Amino acid sequence: MASTGTAKKTEGEQPSKETAIRVPNPHLQKMKEDVLYHLALGTGTHNLPALFGDVKFVCTGGSPLRMKAFITSIAKEMAIGSPACDLPNICAATDRYAMYKAGPVLALSHGIGMSSIATMLHELIKLLHHAKCSNVIIIRIGTSGGIGLEPGSVVITKQAVNASFKPQLEQMVLGKSVLRNTDLDEKLAEELLECGKELHQFNTVIGNTMCTLDFYEGQARLDGAICSYTEEDKMKYLKAAHEAGVRNIEMESAIVAAMCNLSGIKGAVVCVTLLNRLQGDQITSSHEALVEYEERPQKLVGQFLKKRLGGK
Amino acid sequence: MASTGTAKKTEGEQPSKETAIRVPNPHLQKMKEDVLYHLALGTGTHNLPALFGDVKFVCTGGSPLRMKAFITSIAKEMAIGSPACDLPNICAATDRYAMYKAGPVLALSHGIGMSSIATMLHELIKLLHHAKCSNVIIIRIGTSGGIGLEPGSVVITKQAVNASFKPQLEQMVLGKSVLRNTDLDEKLAEELLECGKELHQFNTVIGNTMCTLDFYEGQARLDGAICSYTEEDKMKYLKAAHEAGVRNIEMESAIVAAMCNLSGIKGAVVCVTLLNRLQGDQITSSHEALVEYEERPQKLVGQFLKKRLGGK
Repeated sequence: MASTGTAKKTEGEQPSKETAIRVPNPHLQKMKEDVLYHLALGTGTHNLPALFGDVKFVCTGGSPLRMKAFITSIAKEMAIGSPACDLPNICAATDRYAMYKAGPVLALSHGIGMSSIATMLHELIKLLHHAKCSNVIIIRIGTSGGIGLEPGSVVITKQAVNASFKPQLEQMVLGKSVLRNTDLDEKLAEELLECGKELHQFNTVIGNTMCTLDFYEGQARLDGAICSYTEEDKMKYLKAAHEAGVRNIEMESAIVAAMCNLSGIKGAVVCVTLLNRLQGDQITSSHEALVEYEERPQKLVGQFLKKRLGGK
Repeated sequence: MASTGTAKKTEGEQPSKETAIRVPNPHLQKMKEDVLYHLALGTGTHNLPALFGDVKFVCTGGSPLRMKAFITSIAKEMAIGSPACDLPNICAATDRYAMYKAGPVLALSHGIGMSSIATMLHELIKLLHHAKCSNVIIIRIGTSGGIGLEPGSVVITKQAVNASFKPQLEQMVLGKSVLRNTDLDEKLAEELLECGKELHQFNTVIGNTMCTLDFYEGQARLDGAICSYTEEDKMKYLKAAHEAGVRNIEMESAIVAAMCNLSGIKGAVVCVTLLNRLQGDQITSSHEALVEYEERPQKLVGQFLKKRLGGK
């Protein structure tokens, strides 16, 4: 099945014009060599265009094991590589991140939180630039806490919002506050929503995602080691978030949005909700249920890749 | 060798009075069960007092492999367990964090950045509380960028400072800004400095540590995917940091300080500097040199544990 979206030439899902990776950093061209330290790769030690030049889709999630399971299923689906052979971890020289490749699909882990994913994305975007990749899409697939949705629902992020529900990310650069836009690609979100609906296996919605610095206090949980607010305060805050269009909470979406926007990459965030935060804080579903929930964003993005790649 | 510090009864290195873990969260006592989701442990599934009741020292670093190497060397040094047997990963049911135990020493990984270490520390502090531990010390051992120090120097943090060089951490709680104190335990820092000096193997200093949200722009690097400032701007900022007492930069110290302060735990941060940021941004030392540098905080904390535990 080929993608059907052709609304605008420059913004359609499969533009004919090649869109190169933008690295808004004039200093890079002066560097003789670039060591991508946390990925254990580099321009002086690896032939990045040969290794990564064909990459069109980057899928990233918190857990290395989940990324390995994802790429194994994609490789099987696309009949890439031998089913008997494990795909190797390209970043095996470090245990910071794990990276796997199957044809034009790269899967890599990002750990927990904005600092962890930001460090990886800086090096990934430079890698894609050095490898002369074009028309790249980055999709985060992950888990989150839902607001007002039944557990197991999948949320595709429209805007990543901050603790005040605003679509912006504040970063400190040389001690000064810089605000960045955190809108995600609207057409890509709609295409992903369509893929979710086609599967007919779980509830899929587009909504805003609140991106926080921590899992407990930042997400208004009552069950962290530290908590200075009441249950009423919490509920008032979560309900205000819901009214502002927030449908789930996680810790990475704002960086994905901000960095994709700055480097001319289409970005998406697809997260399953493990619980409904209006009902509680602890993740108490059975191990089996959680494993099945965690597979849902992978299934949805698998459907998307099948359609995109099957049409070629 | 026993510790010699006895200046104040309540603040000495080995107080006779038991200091319990404080969990400043009144909601915890109402919970029937506590699922420590990211550690794959819980009060309903594990006998936490039996498993962890004797823990006195928690050592935490970014990399799971480094933590395994650390606990293996500590176990050997203390003659705990069989040298032929691997110590098991207590969090083996998840790949978010790895945890190992040798007698009173717990070693666990924290990933990259404040969100990652905060999530772990919330659950660790609850674990220590549920296990009825007392007089616990938490030490982060890690890597960092140095300012004005020769690479390979070890910095013991006095205060974790923000991008404006102030000893405070801003956290968003229910959409409101909360400022937290990021001083670390002064006596513990001095004791660790003494241990470094006794080893006579590398330069050890006490200084302030700047804790940032990201590795590239937040640390004034010129070699990220995104950079909007000049080399002059960068140098001016790093020199101002040095004048304010900053000796190294990393991404976790402020959370360690803030959370230890709030829960009545003595905390320390001991990081080796992999480069001198006044000389460059890229980590280009040989693999062998970096491996040796990374072992230095472990050696220093190993010396500290030997003295503390040998004196019992």
